Amino acid sequence: MTNLSDLPLRDDLVGREPYGAPQAVVPVALNVNENSHGIPEDVAHDIVARVAAAVLSVNRYPDREFTELRESFARYLGHGLDASNIWAANGSNEVLQHILQAFGGPGRTLLGFTPTYSMYSLLASGTGTEWVAVPRAADYTISAEDAAAAVREHQPNIVFLCSPNNPTGTPLPLEVVEAVYEASQYENGAAIIVVDEAYAEFSPEGTPSALSLLAGRPRLLVSRTMSKAFAFAGARVGYLAADPAVTDALRLVRLPYHLSAFTQAAANAALAHSAEMLGMVDQIREQRDRLVRELRALGYSPYASASNFVLFGGVTDPHAVFEALLARGIVIREVSLPGQLRVTAGTEAETSTFLRALAEVGPDGRGAPVTQS
Amino acid sequence: MTNLSDLPLRDDLVGREPYGAPQAVVPVALNVNENSHGIPEDVAHDIVARVAAAVLSVNRYPDREFTELRESFARYLGHGLDASNIWAANGSNEVLQHILQAFGGPGRTLLGFTPTYSMYSLLASGTGTEWVAVPRAADYTISAEDAAAAVREHQPNIVFLCSPNNPTGTPLPLEVVEAVYEASQYENGAAIIVVDEAYAEFSPEGTPSALSLLAGRPRLLVSRTMSKAFAFAGARVGYLAADPAVTDALRLVRLPYHLSAFTQAAANAALAHSAEMLGMVDQIREQRDRLVRELRALGYSPYASASNFVLFGGVTDPHAVFEALLARGIVIREVSLPGQLRVTAGTEAETSTFLRALAEVGPDGRGAPVTQS
Repeated sequence: MTNLSDLPLRDDLVGREPYGAPQAVVPVALNVNENSHGIPEDVAHDIVARVAAAVLSVNRYPDREFTELRESFARYLGHGLDASNIWAANGSNEVLQHILQAFGGPGRTLLGFTPTYSMYSLLASGTGTEWVAVPRAADYTISAEDAAAAVREHQPNIVFLCSPNNPTGTPLPLEVVEAVYEASQYENGAAIIVVDEAYAEFSPEGTPSALSLLAGRPRLLVSRTMSKAFAFAGARVGYLAADPAVTDALRLVRLPYHLSAFTQAAANAALAHSAEMLGMVDQIREQRDRLVRELRALGYSPYASASNFVLFGGVTDPHAVFEALLARGIVIREVSLPGQLRVTAGTEAETSTFLRALAEVGPDGRGAPVTQS
Repeated sequence: MTNLSDLPLRDDLVGREPYGAPQAVVPVALNVNENSHGIPEDVAHDIVARVAAAVLSVNRYPDREFTELRESFARYLGHGLDASNIWAANGSNEVLQHILQAFGGPGRTLLGFTPTYSMYSLLASGTGTEWVAVPRAADYTISAEDAAAAVREHQPNIVFLCSPNNPTGTPLPLEVVEAVYEASQYENGAAIIVVDEAYAEFSPEGTPSALSLLAGRPRLLVSRTMSKAFAFAGARVGYLAADPAVTDALRLVRLPYHLSAFTQAAANAALAHSAEMLGMVDQIREQRDRLVRELRALGYSPYASASNFVLFGGVTDPHAVFEALLARGIVIREVSLPGQLRVTAGTEAETSTFLRALAEVGPDGRGAPVTQS
């Protein structure tokens, strides 16, 4: 039997474990910030119809420039963008990987404000980019002054700003983006500033997007995903908006034909129904706000969230609570933050099930055993 | 207006152009070795049905381990393989990129026998791996002795063997693989040997696959694609078979959830019909053999091909011939080999159209002008 250690693995991968949120099949999955609402039936029909049309020519390579899809995204995002501003890939992780391949790599650095999305440091490592972690304030916010000072101090080649932040849900004021952008014009050179707006659609109505800052800032990139608000996690579609020179740079590192004909067809269909696809966002926001209220009432310390999930402290034994909920068919997320857990805002019924179960198991996970629930 | 040169691009990308076979829309496309036969109607129906089922849960992340798909590939490949031996990604380019990410990188080398598939050196560069090009014999073959000697001399970390070779069509005897594998066990360390069998299904009936060499060779990887024989280029599905320790290594570098639910559903449907999907292979082989015969009759020098394309020499002005054919609605492939061009074996009608047009334009591309054709 051959083991991993018998193979000539790259030195920095030796001893590493693959990324993996558990893919447990349970009735109530509130661990990976999916959209619990399935997509509407008429949209599903349109997706299938477009895929059926794509099957007819699936013997041919797909449109390498995914032109129609870029047009669809530009139309959806507004802000005066057109297809030349848009990039897309198989999930926003691949979008971020393309950015690191083009602007990072050996001898270059990526700065992020931790705790933040755990894939950032993994993507840095995968592309040989050095990861520079700057800690957030105790309440997980970042101020414009502190952020700019960190950028001036470390002079990174790339900065990732998660807005709102994962796993904390923390909103990011636009003045932080402006300050970081300004601070990242160095005497010799400048950085690429990425605002990761994966969860932006869940922000309070009227919250401005970093898209509004793109004009005149060619080093600013705003990434998005269809996995969350669009309920399209299974389709793997991430995208970004930036200066056309940026999308030209990304063309140098993407694999040719990286977006399948099915991916393009399905995403175009969903985007044609964007108003309807986003209809469920209001309901999710309601459940998120309810989570914050009721978690507080239960004695926990939820953090302010502009996202579709809530991080809460005050958990005496996070692992025991996680396991006790799992035994009740509910999976939430263990994060590497002491005394804290993260839960996705699901449907109203899922949220009720979670809150009821949490009340039972208590902050040490030792409440009433399953058989009595 | 911002230019690429205004951005902090990685140094080794400066001045580079993106990969790009032209995506001209012409009646007869014989340039990228697609399968000209569309997929059968009943298979198309099954694909759409499976995708329709996948739409119902597309709000959830896809199976990160693509278990059913790995089982489908193992069943298709035979040779005693099971799901633990299988890896897959968005096209075989991504499979090869995963291999380089796991076993290549800065300070490591990838050896290939040139001319060969042009993406190999681009993938090396994209992952910071040094590309070592060893030239083939004048007829584009490689002997077991020469190949083993090159491996002993350069002691690369990875070897890519394209079988049959692209863009030349040259078959690769299994003794070359055996000799390279043996030579790549060094005093200190050993190499990963990849046999790229993208076009293997077009080899003459009874040609053994490198899959038959996998047992007892944990450093041997055999990559395949659904883009060619399976007529699935638009779906972007590549895969490989190897020791389970290899697939464990690739789990360390893939992006989580890299294969969409639609990709998994569509590929599973196509693989359930593998006998029918491969039914067109015989017709393509016939057209390939006809191309070799008729190109020779026209005075060109076609190379032996075990693939779905033919490389032919004896072209006085390859670019002029390419352009003259394009003006007639036929696109073939310019390769960076003097006096040579590559043409895909299409349907019988496409092959006839190509051969008739080539006879008209002649080896210098100056034959009868379009208006007289």
